[in-house]
Amino acid sequence: MKVAVLGFGTVGVGVYGMLAEAAGLEPGPVLVRPGKENEPFKVSSIEAIVNDPAVGAVAEVIGGVEPAYTYACAALRAGKHFVTSNKALVAAKGVALNKLAREQGVAFLFSAACGGGVPFLHNLALARESDEILSLGGILNGTTNYMLDAMQRLGLDYADVLADAQRLGYAEADPTADVSGLDALRKIMLACAVAYDRLPVEGLLNEGIESITAADVAHFQSRGYTCRLVVSGGKNADGGVSAYVEPVLLRVGAPECSVLENYNMARYEGKCSGSIVLMGQGAGRWPTASAVLRDLSGILRGERYMFSEACAEGAADNSGSVHGYYVRLPAALAGEFEAESVETDGEIARLVTAPLSVQAMHETVKKLRAEGASVFFAAIRQ
Amino acid sequence: MKVAVLGFGTVGVGVYGMLAEAAGLEPGPVLVRPGKENEPFKVSSIEAIVNDPAVGAVAEVIGGVEPAYTYACAALRAGKHFVTSNKALVAAKGVALNKLAREQGVAFLFSAACGGGVPFLHNLALARESDEILSLGGILNGTTNYMLDAMQRLGLDYADVLADAQRLGYAEADPTADVSGLDALRKIMLACAVAYDRLPVEGLLNEGIESITAADVAHFQSRGYTCRLVVSGGKNADGGVSAYVEPVLLRVGAPECSVLENYNMARYEGKCSGSIVLMGQGAGRWPTASAVLRDLSGILRGERYMFSEACAEGAADNSGSVHGYYVRLPAALAGEFEAESVETDGEIARLVTAPLSVQAMHETVKKLRAEGASVFFAAIRQ
Repeated sequence: MKVAVLGFGTVGVGVYGMLAEAAGLEPGPVLVRPGKENEPFKVSSIEAIVNDPAVGAVAEVIGGVEPAYTYACAALRAGKHFVTSNKALVAAKGVALNKLAREQGVAFLFSAACGGGVPFLHNLALARESDEILSLGGILNGTTNYMLDAMQRLGLDYADVLADAQRLGYAEADPTADVSGLDALRKIMLACAVAYDRLPVEGLLNEGIESITAADVAHFQSRGYTCRLVVSGGKNADGGVSAYVEPVLLRVGAPECSVLENYNMARYEGKCSGSIVLMGQGAGRWPTASAVLRDLSGILRGERYMFSEACAEGAADNSGSVHGYYVRLPAALAGEFEAESVETDGEIARLVTAPLSVQAMHETVKKLRAEGASVFFAAIRQ
Repeated sequence: MKVAVLGFGTVGVGVYGMLAEAAGLEPGPVLVRPGKENEPFKVSSIEAIVNDPAVGAVAEVIGGVEPAYTYACAALRAGKHFVTSNKALVAAKGVALNKLAREQGVAFLFSAACGGGVPFLHNLALARESDEILSLGGILNGTTNYMLDAMQRLGLDYADVLADAQRLGYAEADPTADVSGLDALRKIMLACAVAYDRLPVEGLLNEGIESITAADVAHFQSRGYTCRLVVSGGKNADGGVSAYVEPVLLRVGAPECSVLENYNMARYEGKCSGSIVLMGQGAGRWPTASAVLRDLSGILRGERYMFSEACAEGAADNSGSVHGYYVRLPAALAGEFEAESVETDGEIARLVTAPLSVQAMHETVKKLRAEGASVFFAAIRQ
C-alpha cells in the first residue's frame, strides 16, 4: 500500500524513512509548503495526493486543527485510509472524522496521538470489544515527567529544569500546553472516547505542574512519595465518564515511579484482564513514527477504527472521584480545607486533606488563585 | 461469530463466560470429557464441533500437546479459526499449525500462551511488520516472580515461599516447569518465533530459581539489587537468535523491580520505537480468558496470524550474549571463574565474574553441579 505523508518535520521524516523498510508499505508523495518542493517526491498540493489513485493511505503529521482537518476530510472523501499523530485534531474533530471514515469504508487510526510509541489506544480499542474497561490513566506527557523526575532526583527547582528540558528539546519554547496539563488532557479525552464511546469536551479538569517548588518536592520526598503528572479517566456509576489531569503523589514501588525521564506509562483496568500497563517513549521522531507505522500495518491486517460507531461528544463529570490531597498554600488559608494533618512553616502551610472530590478540589484552588494565593496540590495515592 | 471452547477448567469457564458478553461473539458448544456432558452446551466429541457449520472459531484451553494438537488440526481442516492459550502446544507444533491455518485461510492466534493477560505477542507481531525488533524479554512466569518477591520483601526461605505459593494456587503441586524456568523458556520461544521467524527448539538455556537461598537474597539485597527470573531473546549479528532464561539482579528503579507478586512484564526493543514495556497478570482465569477473547475480537477485525509465513524451527545460539554474573558456590571452587571480586564466608564464596557468555556460564555450572557442587548464579544488570 502506497502511503502519502502530510508534513515533513520531525515525525514526517521518520514516517517517510520507515515506509521504505516496512513490509507491505511503500512511501508515496509528501505534502510540504509551497516553495519547499525541493525533491521529486515532495508536492505542495493536497489535490495531487487525494487524486492520485496509487495512494491507498494518508498519514498526517502536521499538527493543529487546520489545515489538517480539511486535508483529512479530502483524503477520506477520496477513499484513502487516514492515520494521524495529531491529538489536537482528534480531540477537536475525531467524532466527525470517525463518521466520515465509516461512511467511506476506510480506516481512521491515531495511535501516535496518545502515548507516542506506546501502543495504548490500539490495545484499549481491542480490549473494550470483549472486556469492560473500569478505569484508565497513566503518565502521558513526557515533558512534565522529565521535569518532575529531574526535580526529584537532582533536587533542582522548577525554572532550572524547565530551562534544561527546553535545551534538550523535551520542552517547547512555549511550554504551556505541556506544563498546564492540556496536552495530557487531550490524550485522556481520546482514551475515554475509545474506551467509553464518549469524547468528553466539557467538564474536564486539568491541573499542571507550574506551581510546584523544590521545597514541595523535598517535603513529599522525605515522606516516601514521588510526584508524577497523572491522567485519569473512568466510567461513573450513572454511565457518565470522569476525565482529569493532576499531580499525584505515589509510594515508591508504584509502576509510575519507575517511569523516568521523558517516558510515558499508560494503564487500563479491565474487569477481566485486571490492570494492564504499557510503557515506552511518548514522543520523538522514531517512537512517534513507529506508532504511525504500526497503524498502517494494522490496516493491512484489517484494522479500521479506534472509535466505535456510537462514539459521540459529551461532558465529563469529576464530582464522583474522591481523593485525599497534599496542599501547600499560605498558612492564613489553611482553614479552606478540612485537614487530616497540617504543618506550618512561617507563612506556609502544608496539609493533607480529608478525602474530597476532584471537582471540589480543583474549583477551590481556582477560587483561591483568583484571590491571589499561591497554591500547589497533588492527589495522594497510597 | 460462534466460538466453540475446548476444555472447561479454570480458563475454559472464563472464556465461556466472557463470550456471552463480548461484541460480535457468542458462546458455542464446549468440549468436555465423556461423561461430563451435564449441561446442554457440553459435548464430548470433537467431531460434533468441527462438523457444526455454525461454529466459526475454536478456542482451545486444555493444555498439553495431545489431544490438543489433533483437535487443532481437525478444527483448522474444517475451516475454523483456531485460538489457544496452550504454550506447550505452540512451542511443539506451532510451525505446523501456522502452515495449516494459512493453507486453510483461517486464523491461528495464541496471545494467552505468553504473558496471560499481557498483550505481548499481539503487539510484537504488529511491531515487527514495520520496525526491527532488536531484543525482547521480561518476566513471563508469575509463580517464580511471586516467590522471588516474597523472599525479598518478607525475608522468607525458598521452601517456605514455595509452600505459600502452592497454598495460594500460584504454584502447582509439581512446580518443576515453573521453578526450573521451562515455562518461561517456552514463552520466549514463542516470542522469538513471532519477532524473528525462528522458533528455537535447540540450543536453549534455562536456569531456574531452585538453588536460591534466603542468604543469597539478603546478600544482593544489601547491595541494592533485586532478583527476578528474566527471559531474554534477540537477533544475533549472524542472523541467528539467542533465547535463554536465568535469574537476573537488577538495580532498584528498573521496571522489572516494580513487578510484584505474580505479575508479568514483557518488553521489546524496537529499532525505531525504542523500549516498549507491557505489564499485567500473567495467569489466572479472567486475565487468561481476556487474552483469548482479545484474539477472538482481533479475528473480527481481520487479524489472522502471529507467526509469519516464513516462520520455521531452528536453533538458538547463546554464545554471543555476555554478562557479568553473581555466583555463590563452595569456596574451594571459586577459581573456576575469572572473578572481579570474591567474598568468602567459611566454606561459601560469593563472587562477581568478569563478563562471560551465557553459554559458557550455564555450561560451567552444569559441569560443577554434575560433580556435586551447590551453585546459584544470576546475571548482573547495571
